[in-house]
Amino acid sequence: MDVATSPDAVLFVVNNVWMLIAAFMVFLMHLGFAALEAGSTRAKNTVNILFKNMAILSIGLLTYAALGFNLMYPGEAASGGVVAWGGLGLDPGADGLTAAYAEGHYTYWTDFLFQAMFAATAATIVSGAVAERVRLSAFLIFSTIYVAVVYPIIGYWHWGGGWLAELGFHDFAGSTIVHGVGGWAALVAAWWIGPRIGAFEGEGFRGHSAPLAAIGGLLLWFGWYGFNAGSVLSADPAAISHVAVTTTLAAASGVLVAAMGSWGLTGRPDLSAAINGGLAGLVGVTAGADVLGPNAAVLVGLVAGGLLLGATMFLQRIRLDDPVGAVPVHLVCGIWGTLAVGMFTEVSLVAQLVGVGAVALACLAASAALIGTLHVTLGMRVSAEEEEGGLDAHEHGAEAYGIPLSRDHETASAPAHPAAAK
Amino acid sequence: MDVATSPDAVLFVVNNVWMLIAAFMVFLMHLGFAALEAGSTRAKNTVNILFKNMAILSIGLLTYAALGFNLMYPGEAASGGVVAWGGLGLDPGADGLTAAYAEGHYTYWTDFLFQAMFAATAATIVSGAVAERVRLSAFLIFSTIYVAVVYPIIGYWHWGGGWLAELGFHDFAGSTIVHGVGGWAALVAAWWIGPRIGAFEGEGFRGHSAPLAAIGGLLLWFGWYGFNAGSVLSADPAAISHVAVTTTLAAASGVLVAAMGSWGLTGRPDLSAAINGGLAGLVGVTAGADVLGPNAAVLVGLVAGGLLLGATMFLQRIRLDDPVGAVPVHLVCGIWGTLAVGMFTEVSLVAQLVGVGAVALACLAASAALIGTLHVTLGMRVSAEEEEGGLDAHEHGAEAYGIPLSRDHETASAPAHPAAAK
Amino acid sequence: MDVATSPDAVLFVVNNVWMLIAAFMVFLMHLGFAALEAGSTRAKNTVNILFKNMAILSIGLLTYAALGFNLMYPGEAASGGVVAWGGLGLDPGADGLTAAYAEGHYTYWTDFLFQAMFAATAATIVSGAVAERVRLSAFLIFSTIYVAVVYPIIGYWHWGGGWLAELGFHDFAGSTIVHGVGGWAALVAAWWIGPRIGAFEGEGFRGHSAPLAAIGGLLLWFGWYGFNAGSVLSADPAAISHVAVTTTLAAASGVLVAAMGSWGLTGRPDLSAAINGGLAGLVGVTAGADVLGPNAAVLVGLVAGGLLLGATMFLQRIRLDDPVGAVPVHLVCGIWGTLAVGMFTEVSLVAQLVGVGAVALACLAASAALIGTLHVTLGMRVSAEEEEGGLDAHEHGAEAYGIPLSRDHETASAPAHPAAAK
Repeated sequence: MDVATSPDAVLFVVNNVWMLIAAFMVFLMHLGFAALEAGSTRAKNTVNILFKNMAILSIGLLTYAALGFNLMYPGEAASGGVVAWGGLGLDPGADGLTAAYAEGHYTYWTDFLFQAMFAATAATIVSGAVAERVRLSAFLIFSTIYVAVVYPIIGYWHWGGGWLAELGFHDFAGSTIVHGVGGWAALVAAWWIGPRIGAFEGEGFRGHSAPLAAIGGLLLWFGWYGFNAGSVLSADPAAISHVAVTTTLAAASGVLVAAMGSWGLTGRPDLSAAINGGLAGLVGVTAGADVLGPNAAVLVGLVAGGLLLGATMFLQRIRLDDPVGAVPVHLVCGIWGTLAVGMFTEVSLVAQLVGVGAVALACLAASAALIGTLHVTLGMRVSAEEEEGGLDAHEHGAEAYGIPLSRDHETASAPAHPAAAK
Repeated sequence: MDVATSPDAVLFVVNNVWMLIAAFMVFLMHLGFAALEAGSTRAKNTVNILFKNMAILSIGLLTYAALGFNLMYPGEAASGGVVAWGGLGLDPGADGLTAAYAEGHYTYWTDFLFQAMFAATAATIVSGAVAERVRLSAFLIFSTIYVAVVYPIIGYWHWGGGWLAELGFHDFAGSTIVHGVGGWAALVAAWWIGPRIGAFEGEGFRGHSAPLAAIGGLLLWFGWYGFNAGSVLSADPAAISHVAVTTTLAAASGVLVAAMGSWGLTGRPDLSAAINGGLAGLVGVTAGADVLGPNAAVLVGLVAGGLLLGATMFLQRIRLDDPVGAVPVHLVCGIWGTLAVGMFTEVSLVAQLVGVGAVALACLAASAALIGTLHVTLGMRVSAEEEEGGLDAHEHGAEAYGIPLSRDHETASAPAHPAAAK
Repeated sequence: MDVATSPDAVLFVVNNVWMLIAAFMVFLMHLGFAALEAGSTRAKNTVNILFKNMAILSIGLLTYAALGFNLMYPGEAASGGVVAWGGLGLDPGADGLTAAYAEGHYTYWTDFLFQAMFAATAATIVSGAVAERVRLSAFLIFSTIYVAVVYPIIGYWHWGGGWLAELGFHDFAGSTIVHGVGGWAALVAAWWIGPRIGAFEGEGFRGHSAPLAAIGGLLLWFGWYGFNAGSVLSADPAAISHVAVTTTLAAASGVLVAAMGSWGLTGRPDLSAAINGGLAGLVGVTAGADVLGPNAAVLVGLVAGGLLLGATMFLQRIRLDDPVGAVPVHLVCGIWGTLAVGMFTEVSLVAQLVGVGAVALACLAASAALIGTLHVTLGMRVSAEEEEGGLDAHEHGAEAYGIPLSRDHETASAPAHPAAAK
């Protein structure tokens, strides 16, 4: 340690350790997203989904280092306005502890890493909505631009000191700034490229691996503690523990409503609903995890769980195919959570509405421009033959699984119940 | 930070960060339990198991906020006795840093969260023992009451300042208070609802996914570092690192004995034994991780691994069907670990015996009352038809997997070894 | 807390918490290794691989407590030289806070645990290279000796104060000392026992579970934050956050080159390449994560990704069968990373070359002696019949999976594309 050992110096050390660990936890959300998306879709597209998520994560981290961080946090000089720019690449000053940072709560490097992990999530949210039919190359181009330019500019509006910050908009950890930004693009993309062939025939499609989806859902919940409690941007004891509790209560409430609701409505306790209900509660509480009390957090989670069920049914009715429920989870509950802050706290509901609306307009415009351009040039969608044959076989020349038929299956004698073979 | 920056204030910040991270790690144990239970049972019940675990976790967290926390930690006033009550819901005081907490090691919120994550584990332990034949609704009612009322009252006896605390009973992180409480209910439930159809015919059943079980086992080990080292309730360097080491040595010793023991006894190195041997060592060391030295921790783990093998064979002989080995792992090794503290340290063996016995009586009585009542009302067990057809198909209208037959399998030419198809 | 509350005492608490958490994260790498190795190989050997990894981890931890820690860190007295010895077993002094440690950054226990988690990785690296045909008993004997004696002696050379430390060799977190030590043994073992039957016929073999491999790869990346940033051996804010960022940038760069490179070279974006590319970047940056700037870290990662592709093709050409790519990832990129420190920083390239060469000679000699001896005594390789039938069936009497044929598969009508069945 070069830092002289004063209580302030030690506090800096603690804050920095905490923020780094929170960043690592947000990193793990990417494994959560990949597992949830893969588990919620058909086996024939699994390699494609995993590859896509590895690539987005890596591209997101590198572009954020080159461009995004400087668009989103252009520095002290910038305030107000719509766009600002802090210069290319990472520049920590002489020792990574420039004056501004040394007086703050963590180093320049930690600041970058925590924010970079966030940036990569915005693009990942879109991935699930277009799964199983999007063209890999076109999607990667879209997400590279979206994460490198669109997300950081909108992030600047609120967290970088831009015009939404000046307006009094409150979005603690990003119900709108992260999940809404991803969610609007998911909506545009899913609408534009259209449903999977057969998605609305018969019972539709189911995910190919319930355990993989559950692993994804619970890793996301785990990582969300870093996402939300890390967004305190220091290790302030009351603040981070309060946020961890509101986050927990909203997630549990979302699970409960969606799990029991699906059971009550259809007679079938639905695992996907339980998983997505938890995520709905998490997205919902993200905007106000710092200012909502425990009872309000439960309420936000309960409503989010209900919205999840309603929005999922509504998308089904209007035939918008969203294989993982990205729009209900991230967009609908992101809006709900942002507005809830205006309803249950002293934050102005008008400011919340303006923020939600402005982000909506910007993201709709940017997504439509990007996706429209890619649609008429490269093509956003694979051919019907590729889709039916599976992206793994056609785009990757691979199969996700090589698991042999169960021995027990071969000797099973209960043909009436295929699911019961073993 | 509103806290004035003194060394004591910074120490409070550190303790609180550590305890929160420990709570997050205990959260991850729930993914571990779900994966281990699902992987150790048949594919046709996987959705049911995952749903059940998501539901218990959420119910456990919410009921602990409403009731459990106040039953278990009724506050300063309470001491001695069998039951006490601190009022409904969460009440952090003005800022979550009430005087009592500000002088302690972490905030009210952190205290709640860490304890809530523990509470949810007690019910989850039961889940594995009754897997594949328990009725979902009945099980959820049982676990809701068990986690909301029974666990916190017994927890109060020791950790909340009740009569076991006054007696000198020592159960550091819950070999008896958590694992025993879950284990006794697992025994009662598994006995009452009886074995799965066919469980003791031929070779019996095997788990459907070894990787899922291994993921579960190693995530539990990881989370156990939060469970045990977090139970120091501060970041005291010598204490938390000592606990982490004894925990590690006991887990590794348990793996070794069970893995090598199964190999020696049957000629087959058994993966389930290795995984459960690790958990056996972990449960065993939980009561004394703070007071046992490294050699004693190894001994506790070695014996736990042996007890696991012995108890598993014994249950097999008396035809008590426990699909995941919850009774050998949590109950038998929980008792062993608690008594070991009385053998290898200055803690009174009599106090340990009294504690084990009292918890046994209370849990047997409570479990029998709850399960008996549910048995004659709702019914604790599904019909034979549902069981044979699988809970996924019958209770959830779902299948856990949609993985196609391996291409290689179809062209395999070694019919003599079905397991060798690919 | 018995420690008096001074800023120095609190700093000690923070450092210790951080180092413990880093150790827990390195623990999770073992789940990552197990999942990656199992997912990258055929289903018929999955139980064997998981058992092997659980056993190595446990053996590694216990032998490191008994022998390794004292061979690697013999204490203050030792300096220079090739071998030293600090006495049998763990000896923390009176309170685990002996004078030497209390003046340092963490307790004796934390020191042991962090180093023990490292030790167990060295043997695990070998495991992947010999997967699917190694005899379990022979492999366990090899790895026990390698991890208990060979790794700690070489570790002593650099980190324990031995002759490489005196030479000015710089290997921050172990590109050579951990990954090279494992990698050289992987090379010897894979060469000696020869390729899997059929490994170079037709398209060769593929892993049986892409999700399992991806889970493994991303958990390794996550755990690597503990591995590298923990290697600062304190919570020094600038140092740990700098290391976390260089680690991130190199990993992302490695993914990018390997993913895009495989796409460009073969027309098929390859998931295994993406995963191993990330690991290649991580291994590469491990030697210099503390001294490389962000641009150099990107460069190290880019080159590592390219080396991965090249080395994988080269091994294919010389018919050295390494199912998980342990040699390209750990050995080739470990050498690259170690030499890169000599190229891009003020560290002497000569010292780096000497270090790499000395470790190569020692590991080649030790591995050859151990493997050669085991080869002519027990036999390092299973019989052809066992290999074809699968290690799970023959060595463990088990099957990894009992997953029934997908219902959708049975009704699928697209026989032209087997991968598209569901």
